[in-house]
Amino acid sequence: MSVFMGVGTAGLKGSKKPDILVIHLQKECAASVVFTGNHFKAASVLYSEEAYRRSGGYIRALVINSGNANCAVGKEGILHAELMAKKISELLDIPEEQVLVFSTGIIGKPLPIEDVLKAIEHACSNLEELDLKTASEVISTTDKFPKYDFLKKDHLEVFGFAKGAGMIHPNMATMLAFVFTNADLDPYELSSIHREITERTFNSISVDGCTSTNDSFALISLGVYRENDLTKVRDAVEEVSLSLAKKIVEDGEGATKVIKVVVKNATLQLKARLIAEKIATSNLVKTAIFGGDPNFGRILAAAGSTAFPIDQFKLKLYIGNHLVYDSKVHPHALKHAKEYLQTEKEISIVLDLMEGKESWTYYASDLGYEYIRINAEYTT
Amino acid sequence: MSVFMGVGTAGLKGSKKPDILVIHLQKECAASVVFTGNHFKAASVLYSEEAYRRSGGYIRALVINSGNANCAVGKEGILHAELMAKKISELLDIPEEQVLVFSTGIIGKPLPIEDVLKAIEHACSNLEELDLKTASEVISTTDKFPKYDFLKKDHLEVFGFAKGAGMIHPNMATMLAFVFTNADLDPYELSSIHREITERTFNSISVDGCTSTNDSFALISLGVYRENDLTKVRDAVEEVSLSLAKKIVEDGEGATKVIKVVVKNATLQLKARLIAEKIATSNLVKTAIFGGDPNFGRILAAAGSTAFPIDQFKLKLYIGNHLVYDSKVHPHALKHAKEYLQTEKEISIVLDLMEGKESWTYYASDLGYEYIRINAEYTT
Repeated sequence: MSVFMGVGTAGLKGSKKPDILVIHLQKECAASVVFTGNHFKAASVLYSEEAYRRSGGYIRALVINSGNANCAVGKEGILHAELMAKKISELLDIPEEQVLVFSTGIIGKPLPIEDVLKAIEHACSNLEELDLKTASEVISTTDKFPKYDFLKKDHLEVFGFAKGAGMIHPNMATMLAFVFTNADLDPYELSSIHREITERTFNSISVDGCTSTNDSFALISLGVYRENDLTKVRDAVEEVSLSLAKKIVEDGEGATKVIKVVVKNATLQLKARLIAEKIATSNLVKTAIFGGDPNFGRILAAAGSTAFPIDQFKLKLYIGNHLVYDSKVHPHALKHAKEYLQTEKEISIVLDLMEGKESWTYYASDLGYEYIRINAEYTT
Repeated sequence: MSVFMGVGTAGLKGSKKPDILVIHLQKECAASVVFTGNHFKAASVLYSEEAYRRSGGYIRALVINSGNANCAVGKEGILHAELMAKKISELLDIPEEQVLVFSTGIIGKPLPIEDVLKAIEHACSNLEELDLKTASEVISTTDKFPKYDFLKKDHLEVFGFAKGAGMIHPNMATMLAFVFTNADLDPYELSSIHREITERTFNSISVDGCTSTNDSFALISLGVYRENDLTKVRDAVEEVSLSLAKKIVEDGEGATKVIKVVVKNATLQLKARLIAEKIATSNLVKTAIFGGDPNFGRILAAAGSTAFPIDQFKLKLYIGNHLVYDSKVHPHALKHAKEYLQTEKEISIVLDLMEGKESWTYYASDLGYEYIRINAEYTT
């Protein structure tokens, strides 16, 4: 089954580039959607959460506008999202609750709804087959490159597109991701693998530790063929999702490096995860990596600052393959680690807690002058 | 009762300035000490936690070295702290467990213990009355100014000194604070007011959200006269402690402004506190303040990203005295807020949740280029 898309321009982006994307599914498709955990949700998120609940987990269309977050505009924003869904419902003759609405862009500015509805009309009357690159470009705001990926394993296909580069432009909300698979899964199966994958992919990346009002990640089953090996589907969806997530980190505001933090041999997975997250989101670690400085003290101090105790006389810390600390500092390894930091683009930090069997991996961008420039110099 | 101090130089600072401070109390004094919550504790912290437990809450002396954190040096560091305490115990003829050891400075370098012991000997043979400014200078690392304060209300005296400017220099650990009162309190009374005050002062400030391996805050009762109104003592100690805490924020790495975040009318104090902390530690909010940008969307997005729900259609957000958001944006107020941000040094952000009676205040520095320069350009 093909996925169709339509593109329109409502003038929401400064660039006057296309800013409305309609995705049309030819039949009801099981879908699982994870919305932002932020309590200050965009009106589009408030609308779509409710519509998705009413849909029973089967949807027919998505509409995504970029350039305006439809957030912090009062209850009018919910009405705007509803009008967008209603329009598509009429034009494509599908139930209103099977249309989900996503928005990304400036906060606090009402949508010019007449222009948006006109652009939707244009998009719906010019449907063509989904092109991942174009789709990513239409929903992008200040992304430096489009983000999409495709995977085929025997009969199984998984493909998706995304946008996101941190809250790169002031008042721009962060990430949206849409992943499709041709495998036929029901909403329950879909949502169970979706949650697990979200934790290990989009919920394990950070540009600046800030959760946006609009973040959403949808996983859609096109229902073409039955794949009984759910693990196979999960692995393929995870591979595509992780690829998209890493592209967002790579495109992170001011990023010069991707930092991969692995915490291994912990007693609990949650412990490994929270320590990895603490290291990956520490401003002191991120500035050190930016500066090419193998500052093991900052990594250890970050590792120690979760609720979980660590044994400082047992753990081992590696930067790249270099063992820099195990109850004592290794100056020679530090020298090699410094060269490694100054030449590689993807930096690996491995903390071996030497106490159990659980591990977690977290990805983050480094923190440099460009982040400050992007986030401080633009004023509303 | 007077407090005495001795100063020595062990060559731990690059500047060759005094780096050893011994504080001598003429009699046993009730003390309450709060050590870092970091699980990767400096050896001096590990030693002093144990000594304090053995002391039963009454102490006779403190020794503080700056320029070396005595951290991440293996178990040898604990032995070094013990040797420092033992030396003072012999020289001043006081029980070993009544001497507490504090260190601040570079992580991962063993203390040159012979030099440290010699400097302690010098300090102990040259005791004089405590001078707050000198004391702060001796324990400072890269602080730009000394931090001390004094308060007298009727008979009640409270005075203290501190060091800290964020982990301003790479591998430098953050804050130490010592506050004294002439009021006679037992260890139990002291620790109950100490914990409460710590939460509202040193635990409600942030430069970069990073917890150091050496942070410590001691409150010492000199036992001169009995003050039965404990609230009066608490308020005075809180006033001095908050003054010291705010000086640390003001001296925060690269700081150009102090941001005061007040969350009020919450249903729970914990909720007010976590939301205030989230706003105050958000890189996006901090860069906006640095840039003089009244970016209300970032403040609201930060407020929404704790575990506590907020009602976006009820809350009010003020920057300075300007109501910038209450279900809708006020463009005129935003213009005034922008002028306010660009002229004031202490910036007030007030989020009124309009739902209860609890409030919390949190202080933070802004985030600019200088933070990146300080933390990225120095390499180990």
